[in-house]
Amino acid sequence: MLEPACPSPPDFRSEEQDLFTLRELPALDGVEVLDQRALPHRLVSVKLSTPEEAATAIREMYVRGAPLIGAVAAYGVYLAALRAPDAELDRAVANAARLLAETRPTAVNLHWALQLVVGRIGHGSPEEKRQRALEAARQVVADELERSRRIGEEGVRLIVEASERRGGEPVQVLTHCNAGWLATLGHGTATAPIYAAHRLGIALHVWVDETRPRNQGAALTAFELGRLGVPHSVIVDNAGGHLMQQGMVDLAIVGADRVAANGDTANKIGTYLKALAAHDNGVPFYVAAPSSTFDWKTPHGGAIPIEERSEDEVRYVEGLGAHGPERVLLVPEGTRARNFGFDVTPARLITGFITEHGVSTPGELRDRIGGR
Amino acid sequence: MLEPACPSPPDFRSEEQDLFTLRELPALDGVEVLDQRALPHRLVSVKLSTPEEAATAIREMYVRGAPLIGAVAAYGVYLAALRAPDAELDRAVANAARLLAETRPTAVNLHWALQLVVGRIGHGSPEEKRQRALEAARQVVADELERSRRIGEEGVRLIVEASERRGGEPVQVLTHCNAGWLATLGHGTATAPIYAAHRLGIALHVWVDETRPRNQGAALTAFELGRLGVPHSVIVDNAGGHLMQQGMVDLAIVGADRVAANGDTANKIGTYLKALAAHDNGVPFYVAAPSSTFDWKTPHGGAIPIEERSEDEVRYVEGLGAHGPERVLLVPEGTRARNFGFDVTPARLITGFITEHGVSTPGELRDRIGGR
Repeated sequence: MLEPACPSPPDFRSEEQDLFTLRELPALDGVEVLDQRALPHRLVSVKLSTPEEAATAIREMYVRGAPLIGAVAAYGVYLAALRAPDAELDRAVANAARLLAETRPTAVNLHWALQLVVGRIGHGSPEEKRQRALEAARQVVADELERSRRIGEEGVRLIVEASERRGGEPVQVLTHCNAGWLATLGHGTATAPIYAAHRLGIALHVWVDETRPRNQGAALTAFELGRLGVPHSVIVDNAGGHLMQQGMVDLAIVGADRVAANGDTANKIGTYLKALAAHDNGVPFYVAAPSSTFDWKTPHGGAIPIEERSEDEVRYVEGLGAHGPERVLLVPEGTRARNFGFDVTPARLITGFITEHGVSTPGELRDRIGGR
Repeated sequence: MLEPACPSPPDFRSEEQDLFTLRELPALDGVEVLDQRALPHRLVSVKLSTPEEAATAIREMYVRGAPLIGAVAAYGVYLAALRAPDAELDRAVANAARLLAETRPTAVNLHWALQLVVGRIGHGSPEEKRQRALEAARQVVADELERSRRIGEEGVRLIVEASERRGGEPVQVLTHCNAGWLATLGHGTATAPIYAAHRLGIALHVWVDETRPRNQGAALTAFELGRLGVPHSVIVDNAGGHLMQQGMVDLAIVGADRVAANGDTANKIGTYLKALAAHDNGVPFYVAAPSSTFDWKTPHGGAIPIEERSEDEVRYVEGLGAHGPERVLLVPEGTRARNFGFDVTPARLITGFITEHGVSTPGELRDRIGGR
């Protein structure tokens, strides 16, 4: 039998979070995730009981953000082991790992998490394997939580320094997409230094890029910051360059879906444009990501696959209408669109990487962690 | 009495246009404009009979685009002269010019057109003044039409050259916002070379930036290109940098709301980001604008006022819902936004200016037109 669930199962929150993004169900027969597609206007959670349901949740973006995708995928493998008849457990695990790996091509944490869980299952009785799969999934989550906490501790220094330069006036931070606790577990990645600074009582204000086409900034980052009381303003993705020209941004912090060995960084489409503007205006531009997002096997950004998604994500947008949530068509009927999910920001435009091992270049990080 | 209206009043279309953007009413007691707020899902026209109505149409963006704003403002002055009692005509004209000048701060064509009409009214009987105001407004329109035609003739060479480099494969053109016939009269500015190339049978494809917050690309440029049969795809504003990195853009052409004497160019917010990406990837970046958009009295971009508009343009978006046009809220309720209408692209990022006087630098243009 599986180890009994905690009386109150862990839901992997940081001290600030008043909502979970992922939690185990008490019977350990599935996980519950916050369906982020319904945010910010509705709170909906979904139970995932099979690897197929986990794959759907990732592919259809019920959950998104590289660390959270990795965690859900890890539980997806566990659910495959749980559901399979004893004789088919190994095959079911391998099939689930393949299915889950194919859900999203760009984020590397997904592959990292799958390898960790599959690798830990090892040999032994089916029950032992199921127990180890669960432990490995929990380990993926615990590791991400700890990395997120450390990113906050390391990155907050940058905001403290900016606050001193500002003489205590609010530090102006720009972020793109959502690399907050909704994208991860715990404190987020790009938001971890922001939340750490807010806890310390440092005055700051966040410029939240809307982040079309799926509006993770307008819908999710604004939602998070609002719940935690961090001052912020939503802007369209077009506005960040103007703000930087006007001296209205002290630093930019974004997340990452995959960092190549040379530091080229795949992140949500549009990140590259903000990095160009930061560079043109002398604004420090930081990538905050756990070391699990670094892919040492990918030499440079040109080797990172860029996901192309459904054109309907561009053609339509969802929001709250007069009678509830509604999807509206933005383009003339029949108009075609293209939808590239990510772009690659060249390492030359990135001031530094904030990881659980400090603020560094990718090379320095690799030295610190021994090239793993 | 005013000169009798043409049997079929001029509606200021180019040979390609199947819709008017501005036309005189037969009785010459007003103009009719296409209400661009309803596009692309509905065709609605609005009659403007007073200078106040013209000002509202400009301020509330029934009409937009620097040349069209100038034309509507010119007719607004004429309508002031038409409606005023004889004894109050001069004061009514001055008041109308002031009212209209204050509708939008960034575009310079507006001021240029107002000065032209007010200056032409001159001395004489009230009827003579009204007649001259009408003639001057028609002159503003005729001049913009001719400039638009010439911009197409001059700019098409750039597309022909790109087509030759491409060996006849479709030339990939990126544009931002709407600088088409909906923004102007005739052929548009940024679109004029595109329409000229399409008429010549040159294969091309246009990447249409959505252009949040008001989606002039997704709603208007896509509408225009679709009606004229020019192949195009709508992309989010975040995508252009990635496309340029991937070699998927041969040239970028945008319009302008005001060009300073040194070539710094105010255009729709986000233009600067695309210019940075073009520069970073060796993609030629052109500004297409009539000489009326050049403001020789503004030395550089820092002196151009940048309009800040209602935050609701960011918080909400309009589209076609299940039951018709609908406005939906994109951010959590109570979330604040900021909305900057334009940014300034430094001259160093602009490959050339396409005007009715050819492709040139601002200095060369000034020499050609004698510094006017």
